[in-house]
Amino acid sequence: MNGSGARLDAVLAELVPALGGRAVLTDPSALRAYDCDGLTTHRSTPAAVVLADDADAVASAVRACARHQVPFVARGSGTGLSGGATPRADGVLIVTTKLRRILAIDPDNQRAVVEPGVINLDVTVAATPHGLYFAPDPSSQSVCSIGGNVAENAGGAHCLKYGFTTNHVTGLDVVVADGSTQQLGGTAVEYPGYDLVGTFVGSEGTLGVATRATLRLLTRPEAVRTLLAAFSSIDDAGAAVSSIIAEGLLPAAIEMMDATAIAAVEQAVATRYPEGAAAVLIVELDGPAVEVDQDTAAVERLCREAGSTSLHVAQTDQERQLIWKGRKAAFAAVGRVSPDYYVQDGVIPRTSLPEVLSRIEELGHRYGLRVANVFHAGDGNLHPLVLFDDAVDGQAERAEELAGEILALCVAAGGSITGEHGVGLDKKKYMPLMFTEDDLDTMHRVRCAFDPSGVANPGKLFPTPRLCGERPGPRRGVHPLTEAGAGDVF
Amino acid sequence: MNGSGARLDAVLAELVPALGGRAVLTDPSALRAYDCDGLTTHRSTPAAVVLADDADAVASAVRACARHQVPFVARGSGTGLSGGATPRADGVLIVTTKLRRILAIDPDNQRAVVEPGVINLDVTVAATPHGLYFAPDPSSQSVCSIGGNVAENAGGAHCLKYGFTTNHVTGLDVVVADGSTQQLGGTAVEYPGYDLVGTFVGSEGTLGVATRATLRLLTRPEAVRTLLAAFSSIDDAGAAVSSIIAEGLLPAAIEMMDATAIAAVEQAVATRYPEGAAAVLIVELDGPAVEVDQDTAAVERLCREAGSTSLHVAQTDQERQLIWKGRKAAFAAVGRVSPDYYVQDGVIPRTSLPEVLSRIEELGHRYGLRVANVFHAGDGNLHPLVLFDDAVDGQAERAEELAGEILALCVAAGGSITGEHGVGLDKKKYMPLMFTEDDLDTMHRVRCAFDPSGVANPGKLFPTPRLCGERPGPRRGVHPLTEAGAGDVF
Repeated sequence: MNGSGARLDAVLAELVPALGGRAVLTDPSALRAYDCDGLTTHRSTPAAVVLADDADAVASAVRACARHQVPFVARGSGTGLSGGATPRADGVLIVTTKLRRILAIDPDNQRAVVEPGVINLDVTVAATPHGLYFAPDPSSQSVCSIGGNVAENAGGAHCLKYGFTTNHVTGLDVVVADGSTQQLGGTAVEYPGYDLVGTFVGSEGTLGVATRATLRLLTRPEAVRTLLAAFSSIDDAGAAVSSIIAEGLLPAAIEMMDATAIAAVEQAVATRYPEGAAAVLIVELDGPAVEVDQDTAAVERLCREAGSTSLHVAQTDQERQLIWKGRKAAFAAVGRVSPDYYVQDGVIPRTSLPEVLSRIEELGHRYGLRVANVFHAGDGNLHPLVLFDDAVDGQAERAEELAGEILALCVAAGGSITGEHGVGLDKKKYMPLMFTEDDLDTMHRVRCAFDPSGVANPGKLFPTPRLCGERPGPRRGVHPLTEAGAGDVF
Repeated sequence: MNGSGARLDAVLAELVPALGGRAVLTDPSALRAYDCDGLTTHRSTPAAVVLADDADAVASAVRACARHQVPFVARGSGTGLSGGATPRADGVLIVTTKLRRILAIDPDNQRAVVEPGVINLDVTVAATPHGLYFAPDPSSQSVCSIGGNVAENAGGAHCLKYGFTTNHVTGLDVVVADGSTQQLGGTAVEYPGYDLVGTFVGSEGTLGVATRATLRLLTRPEAVRTLLAAFSSIDDAGAAVSSIIAEGLLPAAIEMMDATAIAAVEQAVATRYPEGAAAVLIVELDGPAVEVDQDTAAVERLCREAGSTSLHVAQTDQERQLIWKGRKAAFAAVGRVSPDYYVQDGVIPRTSLPEVLSRIEELGHRYGLRVANVFHAGDGNLHPLVLFDDAVDGQAERAEELAGEILALCVAAGGSITGEHGVGLDKKKYMPLMFTEDDLDTMHRVRCAFDPSGVANPGKLFPTPRLCGERPGPRRGVHPLTEAGAGDVF
């Protein structure tokens, strides 16, 4: 048994009596169920799992880990696509799914107070009787948890108008890495001092674990109208997006799919998207009925002017659902036409859409791989799906390489390596594409402000392991969590 | 000459040759012009003033200060009301008013790139030919600078719908306390890693100096409608505000003034507000014309149902300007009916408006002082003006005490000690009303991540001076910037 094992034993010796044996899993077969999150290409069985019942249990687990220098990873529903919750073989996985109470719905101040294990969609369900809803809507919203949304600053199709999770969280209780609980923000929109709620949202578990969140609730729009437009080229569809934005319209969502994605979707779910289209746009408008009517007419006109070959406004809620069904099923549908695929997530300025897309097409040809494009066109958030067959020698590597080149394209165009899936484990190596050593150093010093000993989700977000400040680690500066051979698979 | 003087001399010996003698002021009569910002009750002549010509000059000044452990304070137009830019007698004041170039207006991506000395309103002036504008609109917008807006996270009457400065800044170049320049964010709305733009906006000069900002520009609304409603009690006006929000309407602004403020305004500028009203509401709606028409009708109905005694929708732009003139002149007008006044800035949940206002009235009676209330009712941001006469012995102290009790009321109601003016020098003593030692400690550790030696605007924001981490200061742990007798007036 090495040092890491002894430290883990010390953590378990504290936690089993404190939380009860059933809350602390150490049986290898039980642990295996937690070996990955939504990034299934990366797996690592955790040394122990804590099924926390409440915020105190989270704090106890974090405190024990901090005391014995054992890394911990928090996990909600495990739907994240960047490996933010991939466990560590030398660490404790703290699962928050049982912290599932909606503590308050305050319709007058339009706030909900919830525990981190609450499912995203359940917030809206609870708010609906008051005519309110929670805006962030990742595709996984029926299964993903608020804690995970907070950690990854989750987005969704309606980010264009309503922003990301960070725009909808006003307060957090967080257990920081020494096990103490901090209250960040509250019910108001702004607070004096540094905006630590903003810092925490999207920090991917590297600053601590949220145990309570105060969320903004929005008033349900009076009307929603959804429009499907087909185009004979990606450029035409891109031009329609540009002119919609230039006109000053702000749709709730503008989604685009290319021919490869459309074909896959048609095979999987009969959405009746127009045949032979090179691209379709889904544009959704919401707000007061009079405004939505006027804006829908404007979007129809702009799509026609951009050369749309077919145009349909959903007349019933059923038709609307069908249009969305195609978009939401796109990833799974691609899985039916290709043995394997890699979902990329990058951002570009809206104005460089046509250029970047034609470069992606070129890259596909060069690598001999198909790329299906499904994306939030309104805010330039691309989701290229690189299709490959793992059974063919070297294809997986080529697909990953191609996906990496796409990210480099995004950054070169002035965009970003991730729009809404986060950096996690998957993209940490790309961080230097966007950030200088100085930039990363500043981020790292902020991390150290919350987690000086580096036990909170180490090995994620940052491209290389770092120590905090002048604080010397044990064994002549070698940090126990970053030394080689400590069971770290990353 | 003490140690602080010798350190300052070393800074000047570097800066005068580097920046030129005319950029570095040390003449006492020249320095006196910079002895305060908008918080004129606190004055302190800086040891030197650097009139920076460009970002390099800012970086040189910061680098020299860091090297010789001399504190620095950045100043824009000097309109701040919380003393965030009050100079230090032992420090250098870095003035950014000459960094006044608008570097880019990008209508396609709706961004402006500006230097920190650019006047808030000039951004909108530059964007207007493209049908765009910059949303944050502090009352001082014709004179205040973007750098100051960023430092204080400035608000304005239209925060209710459009948010604060933090919602309109996507990227910053900042000179951090060691003199190096960091790029935070960029043109996109979201970036991977920690949201350091969010952390920096509102940090009141304690993390560094912004030398360039990328700002969001919004499309000009098609229509704007402004409505003035009078009420015979504050409670009725408060009920109208609640029902407007409950109806799901989101006006661009909902402003309220009480009888004392109305009377002062009437004397100063003939706004023709309804006579004898206990409160007036100004409600402004903007957006597509059809929506604005519909919403205006709804607001009229709700005001009537809440018992409004008179109601007028501006029919011309001139009438609209007149309604706003009264609101915008309110502070100055109060200055005409009282020899002195203290502007308070606190936030409460919208729902506790009637209760908090009646408690403020009680406090006024108890202290024997008049309080005029002018506020952003829509988001619960109060600006009580405590009227007093400095010539009457003890009144100034009583006024400040009363203003402090109002803040305590705000916090007890679940609100905040500042809505938009910032903490600065004026309110740092109230921070413990809102934050525990642990909370402040976390903030302080974040500060240390940017400014480990504590030279960036020390003595602001935090209630008590603190050292960073285990880093021992000179002279057995006594930090040069916090030791007694170093010329620090705070």
